[in-house]
Parts: sequence; C-alpha cells; structure tokens
Amino acid sequence: MPKLSEEAKQERRERILAGSRRCFARFGYEGATVARLEHETGLSRGAIFNWFPSKEALFLELAAQENTRLLELIVAEGFEGFVHAVSKEDADWLAVYLEFGRRLRTSAELREQWLRLAPPELQERTRRWIVEAQERGELRDDLTPDEIGKFLGVVFDGMVTQRALGFEAPPPDLVVALIRDAVGGRAEPRRAS
Amino acid sequence: MPKLSEEAKQERRERILAGSRRCFARFGYEGATVARLEHETGLSRGAIFNWFPSKEALFLELAAQENTRLLELIVAEGFEGFVHAVSKEDADWLAVYLEFGRRLRTSAELREQWLRLAPPELQERTRRWIVEAQERGELRDDLTPDEIGKFLGVVFDGMVTQRALGFEAPPPDLVVALIRDAVGGRAEPRRAS
Repeated sequence: MPKLSEEAKQERRERILAGSRRCFARFGYEGATVARLEHETGLSRGAIFNWFPSKEALFLELAAQENTRLLELIVAEGFEGFVHAVSKEDADWLAVYLEFGRRLRTSAELREQWLRLAPPELQERTRRWIVEAQERGELRDDLTPDEIGKFLGVVFDGMVTQRALGFEAPPPDLVVALIRDAVGGRAEPRRAS
Repeated sequence: MPKLSEEAKQERRERILAGSRRCFARFGYEGATVARLEHETGLSRGAIFNWFPSKEALFLELAAQENTRLLELIVAEGFEGFVHAVSKEDADWLAVYLEFGRRLRTSAELREQWLRLAPPELQERTRRWIVEAQERGELRDDLTPDEIGKFLGVVFDGMVTQRALGFEAPPPDLVVALIRDAVGGRAEPRRAS
C-alpha cells in the first residue's frame, strides 16, 4: 500500500466516514453491507477496513461524532440550538442513530466501547452550561442541574424519535417556547412567546 | 381441527397474544422465530397461524392493542396517568414497540395496515380530552389543542425511547410537574409542585 501524507490520510478517513454515514442512513445498520459501503465511499473493503477494524467500529465512530456534535451545540447555542438542529437533521440518519441506541442496550461490549469513546468532559461541560444558565436566570434554579438535564433529555429524545420514525414533529419554535415555560428562569417570564 | 367454543376461542387468542408479546419483548421482532413463538405460547405453529395470518399480523395486533391502551389511559387519567404508566412499563416491550415504529416508517404496506387497525375515534377522543381540559383550566388555552397534543407527544415519545434504550428516565413526578409548567392552565399555577 502506497504511503499517504498526513493530509491525505485525514482526507481518506473523512471520506470513509461521510460515505458510510450516507450508507447507514440509506440502508440501516444491517442493510449497510460491505459491498454498499464500498460503493458509497468509492473505496475497496481493504482501504475501508485499513482505517476501521470493523463495520461496528465505523458505526461507533460516527455515533460518537454525532453525540459530540449535539452536546457541543447545546453548550454553544443552548437548547434552542439543539431543537433547531434536530428539526433540520436528516431523518434517515436519526433513524440509524436510534438504532444504534437499541444496539447499545443489547450489547455489553458495544456499551463498553461507547463509554470509552464518549468524552466525559463534554458531559461535564453540558452540566456546567446548565449551572451557568441558572446563574444568569435563564433556567430556573429551584431544580437541580441534573433534574433540568434529565427533562431536556426526554424532550430531545422525543424529537429525535419522532423525526426518526417519520412523524411530523412539532415546529421547533413551539418546542423551544414550551421548554422555556417548563424550565426557563426568572429572566424568561412565562408565555413570553 | 376440533371445534372450539366461543369462550375457548377467545382464550386461545389471548394466550397467543400474551405469549408472543413476551417472545417479542425478549428476543426482538427479528429474533422472535416461529420456534420461539411456539415455545412461549405453548402452541404449535399451525394453531398460532390459524389465528393470525403471519408474524407481522400478530405483531401489528399487539402494537394496536398497546396504542389503544395508552390513548385510553390519557383520556381516563390525563398525562399524569400516561407518564406513570410508561415509567412502569416493561422496558423490553417498549423496545419492541419502538422497533415497530421503525418498521412502520420503512414499510408502506405495514403503514397502511396500521392505519386500518388504529381506531380514529380514539384519536378524536384524545383531542376532545385536550379541549375539555382547556375548558376546565387544566391546560392552557392560548395554544391550539393540536399544539398541546404535539408537545405532549414529544415528551411521551422521549420517555418511551429512554426506557426502551435502557437509560434511566427521570422520575415520573418530575416529568408531570414540568409538563404542567409547560402546558398547564390557570387552574395549575406554575411551580405549584
């Protein structure tokens, strides 16, 4: 195999990830056969599995990237950013992400790998985002950060599921306004919308 | 095949449904093979498929029953009843229910059968429940019943998903209190809990 420059290596890795993401979104995890992964990435199985030891590892990396992206979005843009992002996200990909959750639940090995990949400091940053929003009066402070985080998690998972299952999710502005009414702080008087 | 009395017929049908529900919950839709369905129901494939034309039809009937049960619960006990019921529901069965949603999305034929089975008058009763709760001041009336229904749907689906994926869902009382803060009416002042 010819040697690739660092830049070419990075490019190759990105190409494999982008192609397999499309492939998983289109055919689901089971349906994304090696032949289809080859077709979507435009690379041979040898080239693909030179970068990722297995289809599962490839999928795990994509799910970890998505998880990181969504948590960073919350930290950067609050729950508004998250709700709007999910409402625009490709429904096929959300369906795969949901399927990944199901696989996580039934495979102890996958769960362990996942815990190693998901950066704990990002979870901590999300928690700190809640604490700071409470201090600014944007989130209510008569609930613990954990309680607020858990409620937001339910609403977020509900949006992901509805989109993934092909239902018409409610308009993001409505969801944002009602989240605010549920957990917004003094600086966000109820029914301001 | 010997003739069964009406009562025995009903009993047989219930036995098939209860056994296959356990089987789907334990092994998932794909994993619930005909041999396993026979084992869990204690009946032969001939006896099972005498009542339901296919595994898919059996699954569809179970999902329709579950859907009816949950909608009736909302009408009878409000969102509080629903939230508490989901938090106690068998997580394995919720996982199957979620998987059913995914299959609905990808099979036009299944979707059509589903629409025939899901009773539209129950949807209408759920809508009327919202309108009446608005009139009693238990739900806010500055939103349309459709908007309230959609928001409740997101929260409900989020709870089902979290339980189905094996995450620790927030305590039902917290979810109920925050739903009330989001969509509760004049009779339910904010932060009453």
